[in-house]
Amino acid sequence: MIPNDSIVALATPSGAGAIAVIRISGHDAITIGHSVFKSVKKKDLTLQKTHTLHLGHIMDDSKTLDEVLVSIFKGPNSYTGENTIEISCHGSIYIQQQIIQLLLRKGCRMADPGEFTLRAFLNGKLDLSQAEAVADLISSDNEASHQIAMQQMRGGFSNEISKLREELLNFASLIELELDFAEEDVEFADRTQFHELLNRIEFVLKRLIDSFAIGNVIKNGIPVAIVGEPNVGKSTLLNALLNEERAIVSEIAGTTRDTIEDELVIGGIGFRFIDTAGIRETEDVVESIGIRKTFEKIELAQVVLYLFESLKFKVSGSDYIIEIEKIKNKYPLKPLVIVINKVDLISNEEQDAIIKQLETLNVEQILLSAKENIGVEDLKNQLLSFVNTGALRNNETIVTNTRHYDSLLKALDEIQKVKYGLETNLSSDLMAIDIKEALFHFGTITGQVTNDELLGNIFANFCIGK
Amino acid sequence: MIPNDSIVALATPSGAGAIAVIRISGHDAITIGHSVFKSVKKKDLTLQKTHTLHLGHIMDDSKTLDEVLVSIFKGPNSYTGENTIEISCHGSIYIQQQIIQLLLRKGCRMADPGEFTLRAFLNGKLDLSQAEAVADLISSDNEASHQIAMQQMRGGFSNEISKLREELLNFASLIELELDFAEEDVEFADRTQFHELLNRIEFVLKRLIDSFAIGNVIKNGIPVAIVGEPNVGKSTLLNALLNEERAIVSEIAGTTRDTIEDELVIGGIGFRFIDTAGIRETEDVVESIGIRKTFEKIELAQVVLYLFESLKFKVSGSDYIIEIEKIKNKYPLKPLVIVINKVDLISNEEQDAIIKQLETLNVEQILLSAKENIGVEDLKNQLLSFVNTGALRNNETIVTNTRHYDSLLKALDEIQKVKYGLETNLSSDLMAIDIKEALFHFGTITGQVTNDELLGNIFANFCIGK
Repeated sequence: MIPNDSIVALATPSGAGAIAVIRISGHDAITIGHSVFKSVKKKDLTLQKTHTLHLGHIMDDSKTLDEVLVSIFKGPNSYTGENTIEISCHGSIYIQQQIIQLLLRKGCRMADPGEFTLRAFLNGKLDLSQAEAVADLISSDNEASHQIAMQQMRGGFSNEISKLREELLNFASLIELELDFAEEDVEFADRTQFHELLNRIEFVLKRLIDSFAIGNVIKNGIPVAIVGEPNVGKSTLLNALLNEERAIVSEIAGTTRDTIEDELVIGGIGFRFIDTAGIRETEDVVESIGIRKTFEKIELAQVVLYLFESLKFKVSGSDYIIEIEKIKNKYPLKPLVIVINKVDLISNEEQDAIIKQLETLNVEQILLSAKENIGVEDLKNQLLSFVNTGALRNNETIVTNTRHYDSLLKALDEIQKVKYGLETNLSSDLMAIDIKEALFHFGTITGQVTNDELLGNIFANFCIGK
Repeated sequence: MIPNDSIVALATPSGAGAIAVIRISGHDAITIGHSVFKSVKKKDLTLQKTHTLHLGHIMDDSKTLDEVLVSIFKGPNSYTGENTIEISCHGSIYIQQQIIQLLLRKGCRMADPGEFTLRAFLNGKLDLSQAEAVADLISSDNEASHQIAMQQMRGGFSNEISKLREELLNFASLIELELDFAEEDVEFADRTQFHELLNRIEFVLKRLIDSFAIGNVIKNGIPVAIVGEPNVGKSTLLNALLNEERAIVSEIAGTTRDTIEDELVIGGIGFRFIDTAGIRETEDVVESIGIRKTFEKIELAQVVLYLFESLKFKVSGSDYIIEIEKIKNKYPLKPLVIVINKVDLISNEEQDAIIKQLETLNVEQILLSAKENIGVEDLKNQLLSFVNTGALRNNETIVTNTRHYDSLLKALDEIQKVKYGLETNLSSDLMAIDIKEALFHFGTITGQVTNDELLGNIFANFCIGK
C-alpha cells in the first residue's frame, strides 16, 4: 500500500543562505500548509490552482515565523505524484527549524532519506532506475557523470531494458501457450526468430556489462596513487592540474566546494589522487609499515604517478630507479607514469640525461614545471589516455550502478541458458523457467519486480529532502 | 537611475542538497529564462502569468543540463519589483555551476552581495531599515534576534520613525511658512503643540537609544568568559547547558549547524562562551602572557564564570580564592559567578564547607553536576538574570543596528537643540536649520535620504543571492 501521510523535510542544503526550501508531500500537504499560512492577499491555499505561487506569512498561532512564498502542486501533477507544497523561506537556520517544528506539530512527520523520490516511484512517476539516477544526478560533480545520470533519469537506460524485456515477454507467452497445447506438439514461437532475439539480447547485455568498467570510473573517479618522498611537490602538481578548473569555480562565488584538493576533473572525468608515503627501502619497522601501506594504496589505484624533483636525481636517481622497478615488477599491468618535477631548475642537458637514464625502464615520462607551465597539458592527456571514453562520446547507455550491473550479469547468465536450451532442443517447460528468471532480473532493474528490502537499501543512500 | 540589467545568483546555501534555487532579476529575466528553457508542455515562458510554476529542461543548445521547475514573477509583483524567475534545479554543485555559467553567457551578470534586496529598495518595495532587517533575519539564530528582525522587516521600526518624521515635517513646513511672512511676525506653528511634539520625539528617541543596549546583546550574543584550569569541565558544562537545545536540533536531521559548542541560546538570548587559560600566578614568561590574554578576554566579556572542580578545592582552594579576588578587584562591576563543578563527587558536608569558605567573597555561587543534572537550571537562570528582557517581552521596538543607533543619537542631539531654541525664543530661520538636520537623520534610517556610499556599505554585508 502506498502511504499517504504527510512528510516534511528541508530540500535545500543545510546551513544559512538567502533562501531555504521546505517541502511537504502527502494527501493533506495543502491543508496542513493552509493551517499555518496567512496569505497577504487573504487567499485560501486549499482553493488555489496547481503550479501557483503565493506570498504570505507562516504563523505559529499569532506569532509570525517568516514571510514566505508557497508553491502548490496538486497530485498527480507533482514530483511525488501526491499533493505537495514547497515553502520558500528566509535562509536562517533558526527559521528553518522553527517552521519544520511547527509542521511536525501540525501533523507532518520528518521524511526519511529519499522518501519523496520513493513516493514518486511508488506512484509511478518514475521507474526504479530513474529514481536511482536522481541520486546520481545530485552527486554528479563532472560532465561525464552528469551526462550519464541525466540520460538515465530521462529513461534512456530503462527504455533499452524495457524494450528487450517486452520482446522476451512476447516469446515467453508464446512458449507458455505451447505448454497448454503440450500434447499436440505445436510451436507458436518461431525458433529462428527467438534465437535471433536471444542473440540480440545477449549482445546488448554484454555491451551494457562492458560499459560498467567506464561507468564505474565515471561515477567514482579514477584513483591515482602518487608515490614520492614527502614535500616532493604533490600539492604544486595538483594545483597546476587544477588551475583551469579553479578559475571557473572562483568565477561563481558561493558555489565553491570545501575541498577539491584531492579530487579533480580532467576532460569531464574525475580523478582521485591518493597520497602515499613512498617505498624507500629501510630497516626501520615504523617505516616498513609505511611501505606496506603505500603498496596497499597502489593496489587500490588504477594509475600510479611516480614523482620526484629534478634536482634530486643526481643524488638519489639510482634509488628512484630501484623503486620504480619494484612497482613495475609488483604491478606489471598497472599504468605507471614518471613525473620529473621542477624541471625549470635544471638545464636541458641535465633533462636529457635524466630521460636517458630512465629510458631502460620503458615507462612513460613527463617533464613538469608547474611554475613555467611545462608538461601540465601532457600529464592531463596522459591521464585521460587511460580512460576509454568511446562509449561516452557515442552517447551510448553506460551502466554506473553496481545493482544494475549485478542484475545484468544474472540476466545474461539466464539468457545464455535459454539460448543453450534452444540449441539443444530443451523442452519448452524447462526453457520457460529460465526465461522467467531472465525476466525477473530485467524487472529488478526498472522496479517492475521489487521488495521492501531492496527499496530500503536504494533510498537509504539518498539525501533527506529528495 | 535604477539599473535594469539582469542579475543572477545562487539563492540557496552553497553545497550539494536535494534542490538548489537560482534567481534571476531584471527587465529581461523572463526572456533570458525562456531562451534556455524547454517546457515539458511546450509552453512559452514569456506568455505565462505571474506567480506560476513550469516544469521543463534547461538546455545548453541541444544539451540538457537539468530537469527544473521555473517560477515566474512579473514586476512589480516580485521581491525586487522587477521581472524575476527562480530556477529550482537538482542540488548538484556541477549543475548549479553549469546553469549559472549558461545564464552568464546569455546576458546575465553575477549579482553583487545583497543586490536583489538593493533593487527591492531602489524600486520602493521596502525601505532601508526593512532591507537591513532582511540580512538580520537571515543571520538570526535565536528567538529574540528573529523576533526583532521580523518586526523590523515588517516595518515596525520604520513606522515609528516615519510617523515622528512626518509630524516633525508638518511643523517644519509651518515654520518655513513663517519665514515667508517674516516681516509680519506671524506664528503658524503653535509653539505649545510644537514643544509637546518635541518632548514626545525626545522621549521616543531616548527609549529607542536605550533599547540598543539590549538590542546589541540580542544581535551579537552575550560574551561570557570562563576562567578555570584546563580540563576543569568546560565542555561538560556547555553540553549540560546545551542538552535541551541539542535534542531539538538532532530531531531535525539536515538542519544541524557545524559548530554550536561555543555559542548557545538560553531563553531566546544568545550567549557566546570564551575559553581562557586561567590566571594562576607564575614566574614563567610564557604563562604570564597567558594571564595577560585571560584578562583581555575578561575585559571583552560581559559575564565571568569562575569554574573549578569540587574535589580540587581542598588542595587548591586558597589559590582559587586569590584568583577570584583578583578578578573582583580588577572588574568590580562585571557580573561574576563561581561554578563549583562535579559536586556529585563530594559529600553535602564538603559542599557546605566550600560554600562557607567562599562566602566572604560575596560572589554568586552555583553548585553544579552535569551528570546528576544539579544546578544546570540555576546557572541558566543566573545567566538570564543579567539580561534585562523587559523591552523584548513588551514587544517594543528594539534597535539592534549600529547605523540606526548613530542616526538616532544625532537626531536626538538636533531635537534637543530645537527644543532649546524654542525655549529660548530662537528665531524661526535658525530653528529651521536644526529641524532640517533632525529630519535628515530620521531620513537616513528609512532611506528617504541616502547616497551610493551608504548603500554600498549596507549591502556589502549581505550574502550573494539575497
